[in-house]
Amino acid sequence: MPLQVLLVAGTHGNEINAISLFEQWEKSSLLINTHGIKTFKVIGNPEAKKAAKRYIDNDLNRSFKEESLSLIKSSNHESIRANKLIQLYGIKGENPCQIVLDFHTTTAAMGSCLVVYGRRGSDLALAGLIQNKLGLPIYLHESDQNQTGFLVESWPCGLVIEIGPIGQNLLNSRIIYQIKLIIENTLEQIQNVCNNNLFFPDKLIIHRHIKSIDFPRDDQNKINAYVHPLRQSKDWYPLKKDDELFCKPNGETIRFHENELYMPVFINEAAYMEKNIAMSLTKRELWHFKKNWKKSLIELVSQQ
Amino acid sequence: MPLQVLLVAGTHGNEINAISLFEQWEKSSLLINTHGIKTFKVIGNPEAKKAAKRYIDNDLNRSFKEESLSLIKSSNHESIRANKLIQLYGIKGENPCQIVLDFHTTTAAMGSCLVVYGRRGSDLALAGLIQNKLGLPIYLHESDQNQTGFLVESWPCGLVIEIGPIGQNLLNSRIIYQIKLIIENTLEQIQNVCNNNLFFPDKLIIHRHIKSIDFPRDDQNKINAYVHPLRQSKDWYPLKKDDELFCKPNGETIRFHENELYMPVFINEAAYMEKNIAMSLTKRELWHFKKNWKKSLIELVSQQ
Repeated sequence: MPLQVLLVAGTHGNEINAISLFEQWEKSSLLINTHGIKTFKVIGNPEAKKAAKRYIDNDLNRSFKEESLSLIKSSNHESIRANKLIQLYGIKGENPCQIVLDFHTTTAAMGSCLVVYGRRGSDLALAGLIQNKLGLPIYLHESDQNQTGFLVESWPCGLVIEIGPIGQNLLNSRIIYQIKLIIENTLEQIQNVCNNNLFFPDKLIIHRHIKSIDFPRDDQNKINAYVHPLRQSKDWYPLKKDDELFCKPNGETIRFHENELYMPVFINEAAYMEKNIAMSLTKRELWHFKKNWKKSLIELVSQQ
Repeated sequence: MPLQVLLVAGTHGNEINAISLFEQWEKSSLLINTHGIKTFKVIGNPEAKKAAKRYIDNDLNRSFKEESLSLIKSSNHESIRANKLIQLYGIKGENPCQIVLDFHTTTAAMGSCLVVYGRRGSDLALAGLIQNKLGLPIYLHESDQNQTGFLVESWPCGLVIEIGPIGQNLLNSRIIYQIKLIIENTLEQIQNVCNNNLFFPDKLIIHRHIKSIDFPRDDQNKINAYVHPLRQSKDWYPLKKDDELFCKPNGETIRFHENELYMPVFINEAAYMEKNIAMSLTKRELWHFKKNWKKSLIELVSQQ
């Protein structure tokens, strides 16, 4: 069984840039250099794309939970779709893929970044290789019981690529080029691992998820203060005690009151309002690259 | 009958900033200075807001056509809503309003601007007063048979206020403040007219709609080139022969070939992809302020 990599666009139906790139790639196979790696590309949620919505019934990228995956007869659109994707491209599926790259966009000014879910060695090894090559920040999402069932967790190794800022249902040439750049460089790194051409970094910078905070809301649960102009688009920049956080329409400023220094991410992501998330707070940490991460990735790739 | 002004937020359900401002204004009546003018505020399309979509069946802001307004028994959600709004707030409605301000946002980098539909004197007079006070550009939309049935046309005097760039379904404090500023200044200008405190400008700058152009598309009608990075966010800036217009994912540039100088607007508005509009081209013109515009507005206001 050769190494096969799954590339997913449009897991959220209103994040359309990777979908458009995949469509053009389909018509012109040389558009993207895959460095000899066998890839499958798929639209995560085509029905949601048609409806110009994030999802039909539930967020597909929260639908890869064991309990919902076992409900084969569910009538929930995204549970069915999650099962279908695993059946088609899961490690025991029709076209078994060992690695998945899931392309997302965000309305937050995150630039290009990688999201890793939990501390699987192969994920951290691959993220470290990409960070070493392209300098992308890594957001480690963990310890959040309210946010589970991510697509990449159903594959042995998987990363989310988030790029922003870009509005929902909007195409932008810069975002398209960034996606293309990341696909080519990631596949090049994977090829290097396949070829034992190994330059793993010594260290990587991790933004470790601590918690998320909601917008201020009134007694009807409606948002009554917005991200402060000095905080808007300041993803990855420090937030400390007494910094401006939100502002009310009458001009009143709401400040950050904790005695901790955080690096906020996903500041004002449109789709997270319904999840009661105005931004997520992380700690920036320098991690030593562990030998067993490297071992995990090499084993995954060379099992084939 | 006193002068009454209708303020509409969320004519498109995914343009949510004015909706949020109106909700907070509802709870705190002193939030916005109405300069003594009686106002009604309404959510244009609350069902579309709930669905986080632009509209349910059809664009509400293309549904104010005589033929659809006469179909009282239509099952089309937006035709019914258009009729309802006229019944509630039309000039012969339950709460008759002479002037309407319709608040929109756009993903294009339009800043704050006014859109006037056709050349009604009262619209141009009011737009001229606001331009004189706040310096906002005026986009004159006319001669486009594909785009008709705008809300403001069903009132004796009405302006659309467009503010961008802002993604769909996204709140932003800067946009909220801009809406507040425009409401207060427009109502102040209307109060001046009511009080015969008249300082009409001699001239106004008009961006007159000439035509719209579509994205390049492939044989499946899919977009295969995007707004060029040098054109993106350059609303109101000149576009001339040989300028960069679109670019393909392989990096190829598509240039503008006409021998005319235009000022593009609504560059890459997400909702216009389905309308086959990548941007609209205008001519910037200096118009002399006509006496009959002033007369129309004064008569409309002083009939009361």
